[in-house]
Amino acid sequence: MQVAIVGCGVIGAGWAARFLLNGHDVRAWDPAPEAETRLQAVLQKARASLPGLYDRALPPSGQLRFCATLAEAVQGADWVQESAPERLTIKQSLFAGIEPHMTEGAILASSTSNIIPSKLQALCHHPERLIVAHPFNPVYLVPLVEIVGTDVTPSELPLRAAEIMRGIGMHPLVMAREIEGFIGNRLQEAIWRETLWMVKDGIATTAQIDEAILYGFGLRMAQMGQFETYRLSGGEAGMAHFLAQFGPTLADPLTHLTDVPALDAKLIGRITTQSDAQSGGRTIAQMEQARDQNLVALIRALKPRQAGAGAAVRAHEVRLSLPQDTNLPVTARRVIPSTWIDANGHMNEAHYVEVASNASDTLTERCGVTAEYIAGGHSHFTAETHVRYLAELLAGEEITVRTQVLHGKGKKTHLFHRFMKTDGTLAATVEVMILHVDLATRRVCAPLPHVAKALETLELAHAAYPPPDGAGRAIGKAWTVASQSAKTSAAGESARSSRWTR
Amino acid sequence: MQVAIVGCGVIGAGWAARFLLNGHDVRAWDPAPEAETRLQAVLQKARASLPGLYDRALPPSGQLRFCATLAEAVQGADWVQESAPERLTIKQSLFAGIEPHMTEGAILASSTSNIIPSKLQALCHHPERLIVAHPFNPVYLVPLVEIVGTDVTPSELPLRAAEIMRGIGMHPLVMAREIEGFIGNRLQEAIWRETLWMVKDGIATTAQIDEAILYGFGLRMAQMGQFETYRLSGGEAGMAHFLAQFGPTLADPLTHLTDVPALDAKLIGRITTQSDAQSGGRTIAQMEQARDQNLVALIRALKPRQAGAGAAVRAHEVRLSLPQDTNLPVTARRVIPSTWIDANGHMNEAHYVEVASNASDTLTERCGVTAEYIAGGHSHFTAETHVRYLAELLAGEEITVRTQVLHGKGKKTHLFHRFMKTDGTLAATVEVMILHVDLATRRVCAPLPHVAKALETLELAHAAYPPPDGAGRAIGKAWTVASQSAKTSAAGESARSSRWTR
Repeated sequence: MQVAIVGCGVIGAGWAARFLLNGHDVRAWDPAPEAETRLQAVLQKARASLPGLYDRALPPSGQLRFCATLAEAVQGADWVQESAPERLTIKQSLFAGIEPHMTEGAILASSTSNIIPSKLQALCHHPERLIVAHPFNPVYLVPLVEIVGTDVTPSELPLRAAEIMRGIGMHPLVMAREIEGFIGNRLQEAIWRETLWMVKDGIATTAQIDEAILYGFGLRMAQMGQFETYRLSGGEAGMAHFLAQFGPTLADPLTHLTDVPALDAKLIGRITTQSDAQSGGRTIAQMEQARDQNLVALIRALKPRQAGAGAAVRAHEVRLSLPQDTNLPVTARRVIPSTWIDANGHMNEAHYVEVASNASDTLTERCGVTAEYIAGGHSHFTAETHVRYLAELLAGEEITVRTQVLHGKGKKTHLFHRFMKTDGTLAATVEVMILHVDLATRRVCAPLPHVAKALETLELAHAAYPPPDGAGRAIGKAWTVASQSAKTSAAGESARSSRWTR
Repeated sequence: MQVAIVGCGVIGAGWAARFLLNGHDVRAWDPAPEAETRLQAVLQKARASLPGLYDRALPPSGQLRFCATLAEAVQGADWVQESAPERLTIKQSLFAGIEPHMTEGAILASSTSNIIPSKLQALCHHPERLIVAHPFNPVYLVPLVEIVGTDVTPSELPLRAAEIMRGIGMHPLVMAREIEGFIGNRLQEAIWRETLWMVKDGIATTAQIDEAILYGFGLRMAQMGQFETYRLSGGEAGMAHFLAQFGPTLADPLTHLTDVPALDAKLIGRITTQSDAQSGGRTIAQMEQARDQNLVALIRALKPRQAGAGAAVRAHEVRLSLPQDTNLPVTARRVIPSTWIDANGHMNEAHYVEVASNASDTLTERCGVTAEYIAGGHSHFTAETHVRYLAELLAGEEITVRTQVLHGKGKKTHLFHRFMKTDGTLAATVEVMILHVDLATRRVCAPLPHVAKALETLELAHAAYPPPDGAGRAIGKAWTVASQSAKTSAAGESARSSRWTR
């Protein structure tokens, strides 16, 4: 897919990053002189964080071309994303420049956070091609995008747009009707106005208000919205009970929002002073880095639970395939997330076993140990693991794991995982003994015939490969020798010439 | 500390659970006949989730006594927590029953979410003892508590209350002034009213509104509040720039909140129908379990990053000590979090290495490899790890890790971790070879003298203990023998008699 990015501020650049890192070619245009530099800066932040959401590598990045003219950027694009300043006249004049160069069947999407699409379409020659696709910052990590059309929008178009958005890992929310601010920003605006009153009235500082959010209901909002949260407050009696119980408090003037505070110099000064104190001298770049790493950590935490944004990432991840060749099977290819880095500045030792565990799962799943097989009462348990840490792995590095089946017959399966960096360096070997078990009795038993056959077949095929260096070696023996007589042991040598992790 | 819980609904029971699991004795009272059963149900949910937030075991639980009279519950208590229904007259009559039995110096805290403390104090004999301590559901996991006094509150009391709250892992927010709804609920109320309008006007369904939150700004709110988020939108120019840019939109009627929707039968019916569809037939108990597991996952994700609620848990965790005796040193004692459980229903293999990694850190830190030592340019990297999985570990189980230093002299340190369940079962052994390194060159070097001496001393002391069974054993050797000649190998035997993990 060919994508045009019109306007390369924080939002436009975030879109560019998402499309590029998902393998699409991007042509970008922005009249500001520093636009290309800013775009590269955002792209760098996206590269440092987005791949870390996934336990599989994203496809090879698309090509970025920064264009001198709007026409050049738009020509031949399947998707044109406009992210200009929030003024209707600016956007309308851009659309006039875009439309003559648009391909038949292409979609023109506006990132506007506030202007309804019928106003955007008003002067268009092809209003039926224009929709709103409103994202949230940072676009390269937060999955929500609000898709809004009008009465002239063909009914298939929002659905097609939603599918394209899912293809780059977004979670599209197709709205039935247009309204100023759409959904997300109306809710944020309600909070924002109330917080302004609190600061103005001296009820709380900006830091206290933020604490009240992130130590309290903010935790709930990352995984359950307003209605699901209140449903729980209603208990087993359900939502009607909750509404009956708490409905009457709507009559109380509980929020200040029957009025809007004047943003006079005094209030601006107070907010600015408090906000400066709260940020403790951290730069915006430092705060953005912290935010991105926190987002990766939060979304990764939700992923195995299929909750909230984690569900969106999981849905995207299963579309990413593992490329195979005639060598030993690739059982993992992935980028090291920043959240896996420890005090020594490299991937912590436990995550080598996490990667190996996923690689073992991938291999046995291909041999028939699927979710249904496990639900049917059989699985593999690991009995023993031996890791040799041979090279450090840093955040953002890509590794490929290939797995050799050393023994596949019967109840016990002996696997040897090799972790390779993109430059061919062997980063680690993980040797595991897994046992086929009956999940009811938790005891070892023979695999069902199709699984047994598949594992045996792999053992036979992999016997053609050389036996791995380092398999079947004891830690203590090698190391005791190395520490006593030095330099004579291969393990001792590798200790001096290689790099390890903790 | 002795705690009285007056009112044992969802909030009161949540308080009871937090105090009990942090080692305080609790006396509870509630006139409802099913109150004790409900309290036990909440306590069970708390036991299944709260300990999983920490990487150290909480102290032994306090004793719970369910009392027949209010007087019995309050007598001798240092902290009385009232969580009665939100009606002023009910609370005032309870205070009249509580006050005569309160100890000098004790604190009377109300969980009210809406009634200001000056109204609560109005009929009290000792209004200076009463404050609001308003928590968020579920109290046993969400750390925020809003502490609110009045003009008659001695200035030391909110600070003393805050310290008690920190002692049970809460994050206290001491408010300077009282206001209806305090901070958190005023903000939630603003969102709530706006969402009601959206449903009433047919803009979005309850499910769409929840999606707009949890796939979008909800992710930001778990780690950064409203002001910090908008500060980033302003860029390097800071908050004043943001206010100048977005201030004018305050004049737009962007939210509906100049009015309140009537909760008539039609709107109640619509919300209830949509909410039922959204929850997909899940029971409240199922939803609560998912919520609790998500909260544990989110807070644990934020903990190593010292962000949001993770910072509160970390601050509490460092207060938890590891008990020692004359046996091998205890390097970890912890409960298995639900988030560590895999498709086989037990702790995933990678987390054994995570626990061992933390245990190695604890041991070397005691030998002088502190954060300052690492900042000074030296640390340990792990070169090799050998895990034997001997017993399954389930969510909620407590394990103790004891570490034997097999070799401590020079650059290489050979550790042997034993994972014991509370019944004495050996759940795993993890043998590791760690190497002392120069962090600048990433090469092996000798430890500084005080660290070298401490490690040598441990090796000498631990030589008195029997050498561990299973140390220095190769995976492949033992297993190849076992799979060929069966039953003769010790490793083969343990494969049949024990349980493993994956």
